[in-house]
Amino acid sequence: MTQLTAWPPRTRADCLALDQADPLAALRRRFALPPRTIYLDGNSLGALPRDTPAHLAAVVREQWGRGLIRSWPAAGWIDAPRRVGDKIGRLIGARRGEVVVCDSVSVNLYKLLAAALRLRPRRRTILCEAGDFPTDRYIAEGLVDRLGDGYRLRCVAPTRLAAALDRDTAVLLLSHVNYRSGAMHDLAGLTAAAHRSGTLVLWDLSHSAGIVPLRLAAAEVDFAVGCGYKFLNGGPGAPAFAYVARHLQPRLVQPLHGWFGHARPFAFTADYRPAAGIDRLLVGTAPILGLAALESAIDLLLQVPIRQLREKSLRLSTLLIRRIQGELQHYGLSIVTPSHQARRGSQVSLRHRRAWPICQALIAAGVITDFRAPDVLRFGLAPAYLRYVDAWDAITRLRRIMRTEAWRDRQYARRSRVT
Amino acid sequence: MTQLTAWPPRTRADCLALDQADPLAALRRRFALPPRTIYLDGNSLGALPRDTPAHLAAVVREQWGRGLIRSWPAAGWIDAPRRVGDKIGRLIGARRGEVVVCDSVSVNLYKLLAAALRLRPRRRTILCEAGDFPTDRYIAEGLVDRLGDGYRLRCVAPTRLAAALDRDTAVLLLSHVNYRSGAMHDLAGLTAAAHRSGTLVLWDLSHSAGIVPLRLAAAEVDFAVGCGYKFLNGGPGAPAFAYVARHLQPRLVQPLHGWFGHARPFAFTADYRPAAGIDRLLVGTAPILGLAALESAIDLLLQVPIRQLREKSLRLSTLLIRRIQGELQHYGLSIVTPSHQARRGSQVSLRHRRAWPICQALIAAGVITDFRAPDVLRFGLAPAYLRYVDAWDAITRLRRIMRTEAWRDRQYARRSRVT
Repeated sequence: MTQLTAWPPRTRADCLALDQADPLAALRRRFALPPRTIYLDGNSLGALPRDTPAHLAAVVREQWGRGLIRSWPAAGWIDAPRRVGDKIGRLIGARRGEVVVCDSVSVNLYKLLAAALRLRPRRRTILCEAGDFPTDRYIAEGLVDRLGDGYRLRCVAPTRLAAALDRDTAVLLLSHVNYRSGAMHDLAGLTAAAHRSGTLVLWDLSHSAGIVPLRLAAAEVDFAVGCGYKFLNGGPGAPAFAYVARHLQPRLVQPLHGWFGHARPFAFTADYRPAAGIDRLLVGTAPILGLAALESAIDLLLQVPIRQLREKSLRLSTLLIRRIQGELQHYGLSIVTPSHQARRGSQVSLRHRRAWPICQALIAAGVITDFRAPDVLRFGLAPAYLRYVDAWDAITRLRRIMRTEAWRDRQYARRSRVT
Repeated sequence: MTQLTAWPPRTRADCLALDQADPLAALRRRFALPPRTIYLDGNSLGALPRDTPAHLAAVVREQWGRGLIRSWPAAGWIDAPRRVGDKIGRLIGARRGEVVVCDSVSVNLYKLLAAALRLRPRRRTILCEAGDFPTDRYIAEGLVDRLGDGYRLRCVAPTRLAAALDRDTAVLLLSHVNYRSGAMHDLAGLTAAAHRSGTLVLWDLSHSAGIVPLRLAAAEVDFAVGCGYKFLNGGPGAPAFAYVARHLQPRLVQPLHGWFGHARPFAFTADYRPAAGIDRLLVGTAPILGLAALESAIDLLLQVPIRQLREKSLRLSTLLIRRIQGELQHYGLSIVTPSHQARRGSQVSLRHRRAWPICQALIAAGVITDFRAPDVLRFGLAPAYLRYVDAWDAITRLRRIMRTEAWRDRQYARRSRVT
């Protein structure tokens, strides 16, 4: 890491000095953030880049409104899934033509899991981590349930994954960073371990793309999916991305045969013939508005080195962890996230029996965090727009809430539908 | 139909008089249309409603930019798939809770076809129409291919569908209006015929929703899907909708088990438990920007009776057909669309050996139509914003192109990738 003034920061003034010297300060100004709000939920929904509204408005008014159907070729809509995919590819260390943007993470997982099982026809096990993001497990279960024929989903503790790889394991399905704990797997190491047993890997990069330097091609990752609306800042429900190593593409057979995945979508032939490359993952018509917002956000992110984001992210999480350890543990708050830097993503998760009302009290105090049932409080750290002083103030406010037991206020007890 | 001045119109002046008396003239003013353009491709990509850019900008700037993650509950994002679905339900004669907006037509077809096959476990045939929209057949083929076990897709000529229904037919999968010919099936009649053989029906309403009065619940339709970006004007790649008859919902098992289809998405339980109603069709996170544009367009459409749109649509297609029959048939242009009004949707399709260069010459003359390989020219009629005089002028320009053989110009010969 580069040398910084006042590290580690011991006062709020130290944090202000860090912000002043921050090479990413200019990037923060490119986001439209609400005033008087400390946003620690960029791992759930990234903030709005300032350029996105104008870009989206131009797509709507000019390309859709004036260009109408002509914009499919003329405005590059037809190439958007691949073009935006290639830009994401630069963030995750993929080669050109290895990433495409389409559908949701869940739907992409389904396609790739099904395709992976076809590539290992004698094997029957999908190996995953107990406690991984539910949709990933649900999708795998739904597929296994439909296939029957001995297929099974096996979930083991994160530390037992490597040992559980065997000759029956067709695919290792893993989130790179755990959504709840923020713990990060050794992507290259586990990929190599899987390959030694002939197992394919499918990484869910939802909590690491755009925030952790990744080298998918170098690590020889087989498949990956990831989310467009977290650290990529593509907007609510942004389309997701999917990665397939180039050498696997010609053999890739996925079950959702849609016209956009056809070798010649507009020939309207009777038979499905998959496109030559990554395009065979496409199914229906590309979601142009979602793609436009996502592309504008990716263009912004490509202006800074991911390494710089990672450095700041680790400083932010270290700052949080030190203050929590020093000032908050006696309130019953325990840190779930690994203290070793290489083992964590870009969030700090705390456990407390009353995490829900504490989260609500924090939100009322202008610190937007989120809660994951039953007892986890997540502090997501988006270094693209989060300042050191924000991290400092968040802990100061949390300490006040814990000290005054403000969370006991009845208004914070009620659970909303979206929890 | 209501009495109109100057029907059938015999001159351009008659058309101008019809437009003046048109009860839908006010609706046209609510669309942002490019100047000097006759847009006959609303069946492929609907035009931009004037209110959509401002609505979308508010969702982006206020709900995403300022509300951030809080907008999931506070701005009603979490309910959007169901809320917009219910609005579409009013256009297609569904009950509340029978329609949801999500994914693409292709992905929704996959879910519903798989679910339908589960409901008829002893049957092995999906019956469809030869020449139906490719993605529908591709999806069915992909599913059948994966299931093995004797499952098959059987495609027959449209006139032989009713006779082909048998005790092995699990699902009848049909487009209500054929994308190429514009021919419309008798939805209620074929649904009843299918039910007599114990067959479930799955209608693709992409070319009839929002333009033909539909009564899905009254016709006891089992399943349907439809497109958001054609006559619903939801924008390029808008999310699609899916309909499931209420009585089938409790037994519906679809293979894409995503967290948004879970009974309690935010409880993050280990096991997938499908939501009670139509929400079990949801998979990943809802595409909020696409939903916002679609909702704004549906809100506009709900302000006029579909019956009025249908009446104008039939007048427009009748006007086209009469002039083509009277003035253009000797140029080798033949009409593919049924002449009987009840048998056609909202387009007029012509066949010509040189349909491609003719289509290009029309576009160069300001008449945007489209081409469907190998030899079909489609004139889509969106009565929400198309005037009688537009239909008149389109034929006048087509006649000039045919008379002068303008389409022979070399510039019109080159095929683009998107054809």
